[in-house]
Amino acid sequence: MGGDHAPRMVVAGAALALRKNPSLRFLLVGDEAAIAPLLKQRDGLRAAAEVRHTDEVVKSTDRPSQALRRGRRSSMRLAIDAVAAGEAQGVVSAGNTGALMAMSKFVLKTMPGIDRPAISSFMPGIGGECVMLDLGANIDCDEYNLVQFAIMGAAFARTVLGKERPSVGLLNVGEEELKGNEAVKAAATILRQADLPLRFHGFVEGDDIAKATTDVVVTDGFTGNVALKAMEGASKLYSSFLRDAFTSSPLARLGYLLARPAMMALRERVDPRRYNGGMLLGLNGISVKSHGGTDAVGFAHAVALAADMIDDGLIQHITADMARFGHAQSGQRQAVVS
Amino acid sequence: MGGDHAPRMVVAGAALALRKNPSLRFLLVGDEAAIAPLLKQRDGLRAAAEVRHTDEVVKSTDRPSQALRRGRRSSMRLAIDAVAAGEAQGVVSAGNTGALMAMSKFVLKTMPGIDRPAISSFMPGIGGECVMLDLGANIDCDEYNLVQFAIMGAAFARTVLGKERPSVGLLNVGEEELKGNEAVKAAATILRQADLPLRFHGFVEGDDIAKATTDVVVTDGFTGNVALKAMEGASKLYSSFLRDAFTSSPLARLGYLLARPAMMALRERVDPRRYNGGMLLGLNGISVKSHGGTDAVGFAHAVALAADMIDDGLIQHITADMARFGHAQSGQRQAVVS
Repeated sequence: MGGDHAPRMVVAGAALALRKNPSLRFLLVGDEAAIAPLLKQRDGLRAAAEVRHTDEVVKSTDRPSQALRRGRRSSMRLAIDAVAAGEAQGVVSAGNTGALMAMSKFVLKTMPGIDRPAISSFMPGIGGECVMLDLGANIDCDEYNLVQFAIMGAAFARTVLGKERPSVGLLNVGEEELKGNEAVKAAATILRQADLPLRFHGFVEGDDIAKATTDVVVTDGFTGNVALKAMEGASKLYSSFLRDAFTSSPLARLGYLLARPAMMALRERVDPRRYNGGMLLGLNGISVKSHGGTDAVGFAHAVALAADMIDDGLIQHITADMARFGHAQSGQRQAVVS
Repeated sequence: MGGDHAPRMVVAGAALALRKNPSLRFLLVGDEAAIAPLLKQRDGLRAAAEVRHTDEVVKSTDRPSQALRRGRRSSMRLAIDAVAAGEAQGVVSAGNTGALMAMSKFVLKTMPGIDRPAISSFMPGIGGECVMLDLGANIDCDEYNLVQFAIMGAAFARTVLGKERPSVGLLNVGEEELKGNEAVKAAATILRQADLPLRFHGFVEGDDIAKATTDVVVTDGFTGNVALKAMEGASKLYSSFLRDAFTSSPLARLGYLLARPAMMALRERVDPRRYNGGMLLGLNGISVKSHGGTDAVGFAHAVALAADMIDDGLIQHITADMARFGHAQSGQRQAVVS
């Protein structure tokens, strides 16, 4: 029931995801009176879906603490409960991000060794993709949060992207060791010394995200959220300038017509829907946040992402890495303090 | 002598700036043996320039504190000294950013009412430009730093951009009042209540930068630097995808040829050299940082920017605003504490 065009967009997205991956099964949680008519014309989805009725919803304006207290019968909460109960293997929501994080944390619990879960997403880059986290769950982060993000991001890159020893960069204002705030400097010290299943690249700068300099980019939630949206803005600005250019003269218009298939492919390449799906990492369960303003195509991407994470056993991989790293991390904690 | 291609690039940039603005006069500080030959073929610049010899330089790897201590005869320092002595009205350098800030602060002094100067730049946006600060001078900022950045940015927008009552946005992870870290929340409280020659818009998000939602975007130096570079990276990624698209088929190639003038205009529009020039705001003098890797065109932009700031009496305007606001700010300081 979350997002700007729910439940219509969500149901259409589920149908699209099912067409691409017929092995999916859906538990649609929300207002049955609104959902049932949407399933009518969709025989495939109706056969693969169960509707669980509730008329309560988390509003986009609800604070996380409000949602947690008052939203026990909300569609979001019941969907997360279903994951905890093993009825579903993952939850995808286009609703209130803060509420989804708070409820997912409360119900699914944070993994052993993780102090705070993070929101993570794929980012398009020259020559590949990278995984960036945190994108907004944690406004203030200390070095241990950042190190844990590095481990989770690396486990993700290894599991879902198939990188054997993923490279990890810490987002900073320069590459030199002396640059940055205390948290990134201390995190770099830990990552340089710890024995982890990742290759610590060192500091990266803002432009390294789109260069895909590293497989994983680690940052605090404030910087990550601003950087992500700043890049979306820059990309839209470029699109807008490109449109201006193609309509600036009759010849340019003709040029566009000839190059149209290539421009369509370009549009698809920079389509933000391809990158829809913020993965809540660090929980004992799969929880994916879809953009609230996306459409069925974008929502289907978020569903496919959740399915990939389930198929690849991501939770098990991160848990194993955290168990392996538990020792190194506590050793480091002492080393840093001493 | 600073930057990747000095002094050749700097001299060529000065010559270009002079062609566009024949009223300029230059004091070129650096190795005379290297500079003199470059002036030989440039009669115009030679007539408008004086060379001040020194063989010391600030290296790009020098720490600001080192540069300050050991660089008293460096080209950067002598150029700033010339501004303090009234021999020059502003300094432009493509050298070490940290050293330029430290030396400019030490020599020119911070304005009354300003705790910390900031680096600021124009940003391209849909429907206009905005001014963003801080872009990297101050890694950690409190609410008073942010409020001072807002006043300086607004004075800049009023003076150089000609906006009578500039709108100011505080960069944050959401538009709601509850979002963000303590510094942005406290800064918003002050800006909402204070009587300032600006229109406080409230919080803006990363994508608002390229939308030019506000005339001024205020943020701490860590976030600002990352956002700026992330946007540059996204823009380059888009360029690279566009190049791929135009070379993907013979028809697309032909389309490019037809649209070529429009694409050249587009390239110029997104050309980072147009936005070269980080203005060090909050000092009793004009100091502009050019990108170290730019060419003559980019450097000429930085020179023109310095000249604009001088012609528009920016320092006087910011000083006057700070004097007017001094009262409001100290009143607020109490109000916030009580």
